[in-house]
Amino acid sequence: MNGADTLIETLIENDVTACFANPGTSEMQFVSALDRQPAMRPVLCLFEGVATGAADGYGRIAGKPACTLLHLGPGYGNGLANLHNARRAFTPIVNVIGDHATYHRRYDAPLASDIAAIAGANSVWVKSAEGPDQVADLAAEAVGASYGPPGGSASLILPADCAWSPAVLAARPKAIRRGKSHPDGTAVEAVARRMKAAKKPVLVLGQGACGEAALAAAARLATLGVRILTDTFIGRQPRGAGRFLPDRMMYFGEQALEDLAGVDLMALVETDPPAAFFAYPGRPSLLVPEGCETTVLASREQDGAAAISMLAEALGAPASGPVQPLERPAPRPGVLTPSTVGAAVGRHLPEGAIVCDDGVTASQPILNATRSAPPHDWMALTGGAIGLGIPMSIGAAVAAPGRKVISLNGDGAAMYTPQGLWTLAREGLDVTVIIFANRNYRVLNIELGRTGAGNPGPAAAKLLSLDDPRIDWLSLAKGLGVPATRCDDADAFETAFARAMAEPGPRLIEAALP
Amino acid sequence: MNGADTLIETLIENDVTACFANPGTSEMQFVSALDRQPAMRPVLCLFEGVATGAADGYGRIAGKPACTLLHLGPGYGNGLANLHNARRAFTPIVNVIGDHATYHRRYDAPLASDIAAIAGANSVWVKSAEGPDQVADLAAEAVGASYGPPGGSASLILPADCAWSPAVLAARPKAIRRGKSHPDGTAVEAVARRMKAAKKPVLVLGQGACGEAALAAAARLATLGVRILTDTFIGRQPRGAGRFLPDRMMYFGEQALEDLAGVDLMALVETDPPAAFFAYPGRPSLLVPEGCETTVLASREQDGAAAISMLAEALGAPASGPVQPLERPAPRPGVLTPSTVGAAVGRHLPEGAIVCDDGVTASQPILNATRSAPPHDWMALTGGAIGLGIPMSIGAAVAAPGRKVISLNGDGAAMYTPQGLWTLAREGLDVTVIIFANRNYRVLNIELGRTGAGNPGPAAAKLLSLDDPRIDWLSLAKGLGVPATRCDDADAFETAFARAMAEPGPRLIEAALP
Repeated sequence: MNGADTLIETLIENDVTACFANPGTSEMQFVSALDRQPAMRPVLCLFEGVATGAADGYGRIAGKPACTLLHLGPGYGNGLANLHNARRAFTPIVNVIGDHATYHRRYDAPLASDIAAIAGANSVWVKSAEGPDQVADLAAEAVGASYGPPGGSASLILPADCAWSPAVLAARPKAIRRGKSHPDGTAVEAVARRMKAAKKPVLVLGQGACGEAALAAAARLATLGVRILTDTFIGRQPRGAGRFLPDRMMYFGEQALEDLAGVDLMALVETDPPAAFFAYPGRPSLLVPEGCETTVLASREQDGAAAISMLAEALGAPASGPVQPLERPAPRPGVLTPSTVGAAVGRHLPEGAIVCDDGVTASQPILNATRSAPPHDWMALTGGAIGLGIPMSIGAAVAAPGRKVISLNGDGAAMYTPQGLWTLAREGLDVTVIIFANRNYRVLNIELGRTGAGNPGPAAAKLLSLDDPRIDWLSLAKGLGVPATRCDDADAFETAFARAMAEPGPRLIEAALP
Repeated sequence: MNGADTLIETLIENDVTACFANPGTSEMQFVSALDRQPAMRPVLCLFEGVATGAADGYGRIAGKPACTLLHLGPGYGNGLANLHNARRAFTPIVNVIGDHATYHRRYDAPLASDIAAIAGANSVWVKSAEGPDQVADLAAEAVGASYGPPGGSASLILPADCAWSPAVLAARPKAIRRGKSHPDGTAVEAVARRMKAAKKPVLVLGQGACGEAALAAAARLATLGVRILTDTFIGRQPRGAGRFLPDRMMYFGEQALEDLAGVDLMALVETDPPAAFFAYPGRPSLLVPEGCETTVLASREQDGAAAISMLAEALGAPASGPVQPLERPAPRPGVLTPSTVGAAVGRHLPEGAIVCDDGVTASQPILNATRSAPPHDWMALTGGAIGLGIPMSIGAAVAAPGRKVISLNGDGAAMYTPQGLWTLAREGLDVTVIIFANRNYRVLNIELGRTGAGNPGPAAAKLLSLDDPRIDWLSLAKGLGVPATRCDDADAFETAFARAMAEPGPRLIEAALP
């Protein structure tokens, strides 16, 4: 048994059983050790951003970490953007980052770099093994750290000699999970008193307070006239029929403030006071109306769902609140737009579906049209780094065989990680990838005006357009082994989507927007 | 005039005239300012790794920096791997990294992260503007820093408000370039004395000492029986007919040590004592034979070419040394292998060509077959982070219109940055992309054995194979707007390559290896 064996044994002991891998020479011992431990499922990704995005999708659905296998600093770098997204979703992930042998580091060989510095900004925990006998304990520590609360990616640097040298594994170390702490009853009572006194109170739910229990408890408060909002982008939110549907903090700051006009108390559950996604000249950053007080019902270290329940009890709320009915949208034939795509998705979304949303400007109409669809999970782009839609769907499908996964992607967004299509094909994952092909970074055309930069001239227009050449998604998908269809009108899209929902396996639908 | 305008004006004043961009909201002012300054050429890349690799290729050929335009921490992250390669090539680059407005940072909005920490490991200089009037001076400082010596990427963080706020630009600040220092005559004399006394001396040339002047000077020493070697991977090396061809430090350590057997003096020019690319169990890291002394002829801060000339004078070398004859390889029809591909490349490589090498296990035969081709530049993968071949060719072609660019790519390597094909098509660049399709991470099959990990079992084999599904490069290239050909034998490849050399514009040739 060598260090790599002890690592994999420890990961499995702690229920880490999926590995999204893009290995290089320094990771060969880990790769070889996988042959000796079939309980770990290796999934090859052709680019590290696919591996890390897949680990994010896996963690959000499985509620436990997958591991990634990355090749030194540059490999982590390629995976960094989706680990940024994972940080903002508080997703547990264990990164195994291969490094040069400890004694080789001093020579500053070409692939050497300061891995700890590169990984630090997006990791909740970074440590390097310095000897083979440390590997197992560090692996358990990494798993424990990844759970938080509030959870995130833990980065274990594995020098090659620590992997290949013999190691003793007397007992497989168990990860210590801190767990969320129980809310403080006195604090909850104080929030209850303020809420009673408030004229227009809102409760804002963060990532960790959007599970089924939290939503059910929040629905109870809604019956009392407390408005329930979530942060704009939630890592995983159960939605659809039978679930309570809170409002969503609006994306643009001035719209959010208009929406919140008159609110005099904002109670925060596992989140911070809302801030605009970007700053704009002369517009507010903090989205708390003037005169509105903020108060913390539960921090991210506390059990927000329990706190909401306690608040509901303290306010004498009924035992349950409103939930969405099951209701499919009416057919919307005609011109293909995000709204008509939304109607088709809402009409055919199967129960238990998982929606991976990197749809950028096209997402809102799909959200609207699926409010009363059968129960499903919606996973948003939490960190704003586009290129997560396809990778996240890989991880979700690996975590939940038997559930249909729908991946929504702006065409610009999908071009960051198209390599993920190949992994969908290789693993035969039940994922339908939708590409909203508007041949533009459409959001930037909006943002150009909002930042006061004015209308695009020829140079700027060229930097915002994806036309010339037009990306041929059918050929691109074919090149990577995924069958694909192009739809130019709403009928064709509905037919293609309905068929995709009825048949298993990966496919891509290009929604060719006019 | 706003901060973004002062930035672009200052860059142009300092001869930075190409911008490889993948912008987001926080970069809209920069994008808009490009419309007011046509001297800067913007090139849209659909992924940041393409932008940074292009800037590397541009800098190597132009001998001056391009700028990149990147979107906060995740945007830099996506570009990190190719900036790692650029660091190892000492390529001057100015990264412009957009950030949240200074006053917005405190809210920790979703896209916020510690940009300075992420960028630090691969930058020679990192600073953030804190107000619009600082931008121009910092831009000039960044340009100056990027030149080094030895040169590298300078990262200027540009908060959105520093870009959009009015700024005064009294005089466009000039970058201060330190320049390499002249070698110390006494030190050169000391090396000369040791070289005279040595039985088997070698001179090892690093990145900065492989220009035409350095090679010509080194050839003079070769006439005296001094063996001339370069580091294994050189950022830009003039090769072919009329140039001196030094030997190349071998990749695998034990082969390098065998090759260096008996060497008793190693004089280093702008490089460090050679070390193995990776460590392997029981094999040496440092590639200096036992009993061999090392001495520094010139550091990376010194003018290595001048030092070699001085050494040649001190040793009484003739005024010139051997150069390669012009000699095309014989035709090699039959089975398609890297060697037969090499023969075709050697037979048809035009004068002035630039070869961008990310060919991994296929490169050596191409290097061999082009030793006596017409004069050309060869640009290697200096940092070991595969995925540079296509991006680098973009930058080389932008820097040198009129020169043919050939991009060599392993299929695994090309899958890191296939998005670059789209930019080749959009810009109509004269680049021929060759894909060595062996449907394997072939190098890892070799490395698996060398690291003592043994033969791959089913799990490991699956992680090293790119088959299942087989990547269809013709479809993939078509999807991104680049015409492509697949070749299954050496004749077909030679025909396709000859045609590509005769016609301008981007194209892709899949060398489908058996």
